[in-house]
Amino acid sequence: MKPSRAVILAEGLFDMEWAKTAACIIRYRPDSVAAVLDSTQAGRDASEILGFGRGIPVLSRLSEASTLDPPPDALLLGIAPQGGELPEEWRPTIAEAIRDGLDIWSGLHVFLLDDPEFAQLAKEHGVTLHDVRRPPAGLPVATGRARETGALRILTVGTDCNVGKMTVAMELVRELAGRGLRAEFAATGQTSIMIKGRGIAVDAVVSDFVAGAAECLVLDADPSADVIVVEGQGSLVHPGYSGVTLGLMHGALPQALVLCTKPERKTIYGGHHDWVKIPPLDEVVRLHEDAMAWVCPEERVRVVAVACNTHGMSEAEARREIRNAEELTGLPATDPIRFSAALLADVILPRARDARPGEWR
Amino acid sequence: MKPSRAVILAEGLFDMEWAKTAACIIRYRPDSVAAVLDSTQAGRDASEILGFGRGIPVLSRLSEASTLDPPPDALLLGIAPQGGELPEEWRPTIAEAIRDGLDIWSGLHVFLLDDPEFAQLAKEHGVTLHDVRRPPAGLPVATGRARETGALRILTVGTDCNVGKMTVAMELVRELAGRGLRAEFAATGQTSIMIKGRGIAVDAVVSDFVAGAAECLVLDADPSADVIVVEGQGSLVHPGYSGVTLGLMHGALPQALVLCTKPERKTIYGGHHDWVKIPPLDEVVRLHEDAMAWVCPEERVRVVAVACNTHGMSEAEARREIRNAEELTGLPATDPIRFSAALLADVILPRARDARPGEWR
Repeated sequence: MKPSRAVILAEGLFDMEWAKTAACIIRYRPDSVAAVLDSTQAGRDASEILGFGRGIPVLSRLSEASTLDPPPDALLLGIAPQGGELPEEWRPTIAEAIRDGLDIWSGLHVFLLDDPEFAQLAKEHGVTLHDVRRPPAGLPVATGRARETGALRILTVGTDCNVGKMTVAMELVRELAGRGLRAEFAATGQTSIMIKGRGIAVDAVVSDFVAGAAECLVLDADPSADVIVVEGQGSLVHPGYSGVTLGLMHGALPQALVLCTKPERKTIYGGHHDWVKIPPLDEVVRLHEDAMAWVCPEERVRVVAVACNTHGMSEAEARREIRNAEELTGLPATDPIRFSAALLADVILPRARDARPGEWR
Repeated sequence: MKPSRAVILAEGLFDMEWAKTAACIIRYRPDSVAAVLDSTQAGRDASEILGFGRGIPVLSRLSEASTLDPPPDALLLGIAPQGGELPEEWRPTIAEAIRDGLDIWSGLHVFLLDDPEFAQLAKEHGVTLHDVRRPPAGLPVATGRARETGALRILTVGTDCNVGKMTVAMELVRELAGRGLRAEFAATGQTSIMIKGRGIAVDAVVSDFVAGAAECLVLDADPSADVIVVEGQGSLVHPGYSGVTLGLMHGALPQALVLCTKPERKTIYGGHHDWVKIPPLDEVVRLHEDAMAWVCPEERVRVVAVACNTHGMSEAEARREIRNAEELTGLPATDPIRFSAALLADVILPRARDARPGEWR
């Protein structure tokens, strides 16, 4: 299940930096977006702000969306406040949407269905509240069963949260598919679940089962897949989220890692974490390889490429940062959004072949 | 809140290995235990099986407990099945206990209060269902605030789960208190919460907040404490639980670690994990120090001692294993249960002094 024609709530924060969910859904499923709500930027076109999403209007109020043709069928919460609580000021808009007969799509940690007011209202108006971050019941403790998959398992990891791990995974899957591979994306976060229509938000899983959730995602992939690209979460060097990241690594048991970075970021994102310096890129490569070796040293899991998020830089700056990353790590590097994911696919392709030597078509 | 006079359910599994909760509560709060239920060992005394707990009878059925003087006031679930589900065969005993007016103490991942049958029955009989693993509401994402505590923060870590991290922390606190320090134990698991009456079961916390829970525990400690010993969970080299462990490390931000090990254990515990070899002890020391350095390299957090769980060994074997651990790591090592925690306290004491140089009494 995924929204088919949604108004995206991004009040006061609609941009690439703060409205990650909104921006990614507009990038990957523009046809499913009717409009964006942000009264501070009303009257503009989404593409003026994001650089993509042409034809998607930014509106001031939900009531303005009723004149759109075709009309919207859902309200999607497009901002993810840290901690995942529901901001009080969103409540009237959500209630109005329910009364207008719109389904609600939420990726918050708090569940709308557990909110008595919204649950009751949704029942009265016959609409569905989709809490995409709610984990499935019965997740197991991970036991290494991810190794049973025949496909090559790739995981995107990062120097920080919010550097592009989801986007890099999406672009890599698209590029591999374009080359004829059966490449599957495993969604681990609320945004990608709304784009793909399935997945598990691993950061919302009880911590004993976070690796188990990653294991399930890998095992649930199409058995005929050549490559499974698992979307990374958080960062091993982010003190708030490192446990999520390590659980994902030890549950999905990737055979190769793609390291995502935002070169200008020197300390951990988000205001409260600037006491943590992001280590040099070669050190970040090594510590990820070390963490995989803790449980499977004989697999010699390696970071095989670096994806630099150069959004906002000039092309010259971007090329300089990519070269820096290559020199520092000795690995191929690119920005798959600004340039292309071809380089990443070049690195993955022979490994996918090696993973299934007998079955290669 | 903690149970005052409980019957402990440990059907078929009452021993040191499988009934961890039962054994630890008998070790640290024997007066709160009226009897143990295990029909396969009925008629014996707990001390015959554990080596401690003299005078606590093992009974076959709950009905036999009514003749005890004083009578029990609670049933405590003393076995923790992996995955934390409620075994079907326990249901009749729990229902019987509720009908007898006993409160229920549970450390399972599934909550008794969410079970309609038990919730209704408890209401009818006026008894309380204590789900000690249920996390408090409103936990934050960790931001490094643990560093604001004046006390020295110690964390026990392990080569595996079920090696004695809780017990070592308890013994260390007791020894430090015996030397006049204000030493506080921070409970992170269901068993210690039932012993101490407070704490957060970090493995039951949604993974985005696992480090935040550890941070809260440290910040909630008595501000006048000299030392906070945080009970460790899981292991960085356990693929099922490593995320919990890392979250705990990066949330509690200990200044020193005590590494717990069970020397005869060569692969990870529990049947499904024997594909994971436990690395040599010196490597385990290093990887814990590395993982702390990911977020706070300048703190130079070190493993300062090794606690060997030599349960079941002869004294000669135990001494040999402890010597091996010392030689391999270059660190002081002991078994604080078989011998004493004095050595551990010797290592911690000067560090506690250094942590509060001006305030030392």
